[in-house]
Amino acid sequence: MVRYKCQVTYDGAAFHGYQVQPKKRTVQSELEQALTRLHKGETVKVTASGRTDAGVHAKGQVIHFDSEINMPVSKWQVALNAILPGDIAINSVEIVEEHFHARFDAVGKEYRYFVDNRKIRDPFQRNYSYHYPYILGIEQIREACAHFIGEYDFTSFCSAKTEVIDRVRTIYELDVSLEEEQLIFRFRGNGFLYNMVRIIVGTLLQVGNGDISAESIPEIIAKRDRTFAGKTAPPQGLYLWEVFYG
Amino acid sequence: MVRYKCQVTYDGAAFHGYQVQPKKRTVQSELEQALTRLHKGETVKVTASGRTDAGVHAKGQVIHFDSEINMPVSKWQVALNAILPGDIAINSVEIVEEHFHARFDAVGKEYRYFVDNRKIRDPFQRNYSYHYPYILGIEQIREACAHFIGEYDFTSFCSAKTEVIDRVRTIYELDVSLEEEQLIFRFRGNGFLYNMVRIIVGTLLQVGNGDISAESIPEIIAKRDRTFAGKTAPPQGLYLWEVFYG
Repeated sequence: MVRYKCQVTYDGAAFHGYQVQPKKRTVQSELEQALTRLHKGETVKVTASGRTDAGVHAKGQVIHFDSEINMPVSKWQVALNAILPGDIAINSVEIVEEHFHARFDAVGKEYRYFVDNRKIRDPFQRNYSYHYPYILGIEQIREACAHFIGEYDFTSFCSAKTEVIDRVRTIYELDVSLEEEQLIFRFRGNGFLYNMVRIIVGTLLQVGNGDISAESIPEIIAKRDRTFAGKTAPPQGLYLWEVFYG
Repeated sequence: MVRYKCQVTYDGAAFHGYQVQPKKRTVQSELEQALTRLHKGETVKVTASGRTDAGVHAKGQVIHFDSEINMPVSKWQVALNAILPGDIAINSVEIVEEHFHARFDAVGKEYRYFVDNRKIRDPFQRNYSYHYPYILGIEQIREACAHFIGEYDFTSFCSAKTEVIDRVRTIYELDVSLEEEQLIFRFRGNGFLYNMVRIIVGTLLQVGNGDISAESIPEIIAKRDRTFAGKTAPPQGLYLWEVFYG
């Protein structure tokens, strides 16, 4: 039995998220179906670094699976890409030691969030960025970003449905770039809670339009109460960009 | 009655082409439905510079329509964009003289065709460019492009289904750029026959991979027979980029 690690890209627009759900088209079920087909009907389970929600994209999701098929990694990539639907692609396949775990061994993640700040919506961007045509103070947003960097209890910035008890996470980097009226938020951290990136982005956009002051961010974090943070930005702007391992 | 000219952008992925067809979702029917709604149920007809096929996109399609509603052009744009679905947007609205005609007054068009030449398919590009992962000789393609510039009978480079009798058209410009393994073909001409851009691109790609020699292009044009040209490139790489008026 050999364990394989794959980097996977997917366009989340037509999926009900990453995780298997009965009768829904999900990324995990497409991956498992493709692998099961390659294993002549024998069920193969796939483990990812974490889930992504419906409409959320991945440039660099990481998964692992075990197989007894003896095939070079380049062949695995070609074989899987030949079976998988057009909105999923395997970027790389490598053999890892048998205890490697895509979720437990991840030491950090990068997410990016794309905002289209142009006045007229772009039909080509509707599933790939959040169209937010309001005037934004980029300096206020940058000032607010700095307040998120560090180790905090992010209870105020995760969904009220979050089940995990320990909500302490560290954000290493959070910056925003502005190019041709497109904002790109880049997050790097040791882990992210449910909806955390989307709630931080929603809050930062409200800082940008003056609804929330940049200086109030430390206070909102300290409240540990979701109701004090801003809106949850929609899924289509969010990309799981990269997963880091030790 | 006032005549309005609009520039329209659409993502062709989810449409059965531009033109109205019974029970199919088309760009024209969405535009006419939106206008009819603004006119409280009174039917409004829209005339475009030309059709686009299923899966083909437009950055700058041009349409005209007539209305008795007295509204400033900026309001027309906002009102239409509020009703139209996310994959169509009105970029501009202007009042034109009553004899302006989106199709008959067009003096030229620009089309672009996008080819993704990377080895691994990009899930985000599947509906927006043609994935062609084979080695291409860009100099041979450039040499072949030059042979298409000028006034010719393009019978060899239009669908056998073409109904128009006069197949003489002038291509003013045809060039190709290569950036990060993406090829962009740019066509400017006084008019294009049915499937003409897609057949020329398909042929140019076969020149690039050595199937067809660049020097044979004048001969293929001279044959006036579709069977001598290359394959028809698929619709998803094609964009009606701009329509020119006198």
